[in-house]
Amino acid sequence: MGLADILADHPDRTTFDLAELNRAAQAAADCALACSACADSDLGRDPSVMATSIRLCMDCADVCSVTAKMLSRPAPRGHAWQKLVMACAALCAECAEECGRHDHLCCRECAAACRECERACQQLIAVSQDGAS
Amino acid sequence: MGLADILADHPDRTTFDLAELNRAAQAAADCALACSACADSDLGRDPSVMATSIRLCMDCADVCSVTAKMLSRPAPRGHAWQKLVMACAALCAECAEECGRHDHLCCRECAAACRECERACQQLIAVSQDGAS
Amino acid sequence: MGLADILADHPDRTTFDLAELNRAAQAAADCALACSACADSDLGRDPSVMATSIRLCMDCADVCSVTAKMLSRPAPRGHAWQKLVMACAALCAECAEECGRHDHLCCRECAAACRECERACQQLIAVSQDGAS
Amino acid sequence: MGLADILADHPDRTTFDLAELNRAAQAAADCALACSACADSDLGRDPSVMATSIRLCMDCADVCSVTAKMLSRPAPRGHAWQKLVMACAALCAECAEECGRHDHLCCRECAAACRECERACQQLIAVSQDGAS
Repeated sequence: MGLADILADHPDRTTFDLAELNRAAQAAADCALACSACADSDLGRDPSVMATSIRLCMDCADVCSVTAKMLSRPAPRGHAWQKLVMACAALCAECAEECGRHDHLCCRECAAACRECERACQQLIAVSQDGAS
Repeated sequence: MGLADILADHPDRTTFDLAELNRAAQAAADCALACSACADSDLGRDPSVMATSIRLCMDCADVCSVTAKMLSRPAPRGHAWQKLVMACAALCAECAEECGRHDHLCCRECAAACRECERACQQLIAVSQDGAS
Repeated sequence: MGLADILADHPDRTTFDLAELNRAAQAAADCALACSACADSDLGRDPSVMATSIRLCMDCADVCSVTAKMLSRPAPRGHAWQKLVMACAALCAECAEECGRHDHLCCRECAAACRECERACQQLIAVSQDGAS
Repeated sequence: MGLADILADHPDRTTFDLAELNRAAQAAADCALACSACADSDLGRDPSVMATSIRLCMDCADVCSVTAKMLSRPAPRGHAWQKLVMACAALCAECAEECGRHDHLCCRECAAACRECERACQQLIAVSQDGAS
């Protein structure tokens, strides 16, 4: 239902790897929500200690959100979108590393969502450079 | 996993209805992706006929995306956020009505995602005005 | 240059008030940047005291950003967009009130940007309900 | 007024090049509006011919908008943000090239805004790698 079905019926569906594209878009959308929620939780705990974590969560939420949106528009158009996906993976890695240093449940969940999104982005790039997208 | 677990452990968790908040945030995030994908599909089919649909999908994708993000930051702070949630519901209704006029699979899926998000937003507002959030 | 010139040449330019539309889009875009910068500054000062201010700045930045984007797509399509503009005005008012309580330069600048965006949104709605847009 | 003044008073103001940061954030915000307006104008002209242009404008608007927001939060935190700025420059270049092929006023204005944003992003990266940010 939803995104996966629309992508499966997209007029350009032969030009992309549906499974990887859908996985990356969903992982980025999930990560955006986890990062926003983690930043808000940390603001309610010990914000001076958590300031770097809060900032990286805000960055990661914004970039994941725009990456998810761009991946859900898969018609072929240049290669610059791959740089956004790689920037998204890099921001996820940075956020996961910082949040992974803290023991709050929100930080652990957020780091896990970031790692999943990082992997999904990297895999999408890997299949796309083979020519699929 | 992810958003729901973070919200369940949020320092202000007694101030909001976790189930409705999570449902609305997820519905808005799903709707954002469905609308983006529908706009991109329609651009590849018959864009002159579909222009209004494409525009409403772009609006709805943007507003749903920002609504999902705001709902994942649930610490109490004023009441204006409810106007955003109601604007989101109104845009979803408008997009669902327009996409519901077209017979493409993407339009049907998109209209369904919009209707689900509209309902979730309305229900969140209903429980919030009872005082829960 | 830029937005105003594009709007002046838009195929639907007879359906909107160019001056008010451009003013509101620019005010919302400016307010988004002021709010983001204010949240980041406050995070580096006294974030426990400033938590509500930071949260309202994040909300306001997100909503202003999406409002600016939607207003720069002015082709006629329903009326729900007006609810977004009104939600944007309400969030700006809430953020201006909260930031207005603090004496940091960033808060004063942010409150001024919010008030300007609130006014521009209200004026756009006023002319639109007269039938211009 | 607004962003520049807030950045000039930011607690971490010794860690970034204020002039370049402000220029890049403003250029990205302006480009986001120009691209959104160009996509909407083209949808009202000849959308089948302009589909690639419309898509690149949507991508560029989204990425410029998130880049502007991230740059207005300049507290130091890792290096992944530079990848986003470089992705933004790459998307601007792609959009400028495509829009530069068309003779509509909106496309010419949009291409100019993209080129300005591309340059501002590249210059910000150049000064940042010298150690300023």
